[in-house]
Amino acid sequence: MIIIAEKINGSIPSVAKAIEARDEAFLKDLAIRQSEQIGENPGFIDVCSSVAPEVEFETMRWMLDLVQGVTDVPISVDSPNAECLVELLPYVKKPGLVNSVSGEGNKIDLIFPILAKPEYKKWEVMALLSDDTGIPKTAGDRLRVFDKIMEKAKEYGIAPNRIHIDPLVEMLCTSEDGIAMVEEVMAKIREQYPSIHISGAVSNISFNLPARKLVNMGFVCLAIKAGMDSAVFDPLDKQLLGVIYATEALLGMDDFCMEYISAFRDERIAATNKKKA
Amino acid sequence: MIIIAEKINGSIPSVAKAIEARDEAFLKDLAIRQSEQIGENPGFIDVCSSVAPEVEFETMRWMLDLVQGVTDVPISVDSPNAECLVELLPYVKKPGLVNSVSGEGNKIDLIFPILAKPEYKKWEVMALLSDDTGIPKTAGDRLRVFDKIMEKAKEYGIAPNRIHIDPLVEMLCTSEDGIAMVEEVMAKIREQYPSIHISGAVSNISFNLPARKLVNMGFVCLAIKAGMDSAVFDPLDKQLLGVIYATEALLGMDDFCMEYISAFRDERIAATNKKKA
Repeated sequence: MIIIAEKINGSIPSVAKAIEARDEAFLKDLAIRQSEQIGENPGFIDVCSSVAPEVEFETMRWMLDLVQGVTDVPISVDSPNAECLVELLPYVKKPGLVNSVSGEGNKIDLIFPILAKPEYKKWEVMALLSDDTGIPKTAGDRLRVFDKIMEKAKEYGIAPNRIHIDPLVEMLCTSEDGIAMVEEVMAKIREQYPSIHISGAVSNISFNLPARKLVNMGFVCLAIKAGMDSAVFDPLDKQLLGVIYATEALLGMDDFCMEYISAFRDERIAATNKKKA
Repeated sequence: MIIIAEKINGSIPSVAKAIEARDEAFLKDLAIRQSEQIGENPGFIDVCSSVAPEVEFETMRWMLDLVQGVTDVPISVDSPNAECLVELLPYVKKPGLVNSVSGEGNKIDLIFPILAKPEYKKWEVMALLSDDTGIPKTAGDRLRVFDKIMEKAKEYGIAPNRIHIDPLVEMLCTSEDGIAMVEEVMAKIREQYPSIHISGAVSNISFNLPARKLVNMGFVCLAIKAGMDSAVFDPLDKQLLGVIYATEALLGMDDFCMEYISAFRDERIAATNKKKA
């Protein structure tokens, strides 16, 4: 599982406060603890300011410097503004993840040409299956957005293994058929492109439901089964991370549970989350 | 999900002690609390003495009387001894589950003729996919045991919806391909018999592993996806029960998460197990 650690995000109130107060210690601690949880796994530390556009570039530069000062884990540069992402790339010291493009506007035409350059050939990109009409309602329509993104990727020579597809996980509580549609999108994408990464923001699934952790845990299991190999989530949640390790072992991706047992010994996973459970 | 509540079992040290001491309060409490957790779901309270054969019948009679005195949930009469099961049936007040038969010895020929009688037509039975050679190693061999059991069921007129098949969940830690084989057995059975019940003892999967709850939770998710609709587990584990509810919602079996939300409100499921986690 490619772990995209989500905690350094200004949409989380405590993080917004830390950004506002330029509380370096708070953000460094989050970066360090998340990096420890990623361990030997492939992964990224997501950095997202969620501040007003006029201060986003400066804020993100400050955050990127901070985080890169304390961890060697690659960065996921996260902004809804593709121009801002382009301007920020020179300040990221090692190949990371551009988070994100989609079928909306000119995002792809801004980002893909840069990723096509030799100096960016180790960078990866998150692509959301939405377009100018919003989030398509059916699997067929999402797969049409996917096809367009992959056409562009081919045009710019961006290999599937550099692309993380977020099929857009939506809240379960308003769904009439559970996650059947997202499972279908994931399975079809996996079938077509064995080396592509299938990702998603795990906690979106449980929005507006009580005991969200239960739904998040069930979702990662079923999503991994459907082909997900990358996910945006909180790796400090030792139980959720543990269910991911367990699911990989259950699906035969971890011979004799060696990885699972070693993650437990390193205290990166646990049967319970003692704090803030 | 058909909940087969596993806690009243003499193989659990605290229960063995209570049986030995004829501690009625202890067992009654377990019966009541498990019944509350089953709630409106279909389910059974399993009663298993795990005592020496010469005292099994008397012990089981005492246990059955006790449990039936405090709950209306049907009983799963559980013994490795088919003769003992036959003798115990008259003491079970309402239709329950005979736990279990298998392809071994004459178990089926002892039990099925009784279940074929009109007065037992509402009884159900657990059938394990083992035979005189032990537990078959391959999916094909387990399915051959299954076919033999279903032939006998047909001969005695026992409808598939009265049969719970336990494909025999084995510990993950010695497996090289995870649960692929059990998933295959479950899927093939579900394909052939849409109305049969597919069951299993959940916690077997995590034997010899640390943080067993993580593996149990991952397993139930994937097993429900593969067709499991009945399971032997501890319903007092509010988190495991919660993941089962969540998985059913994720798989589109719970419109708008109504059942999930209602189980949460009734405090039958929770994001954490506060005690004995």
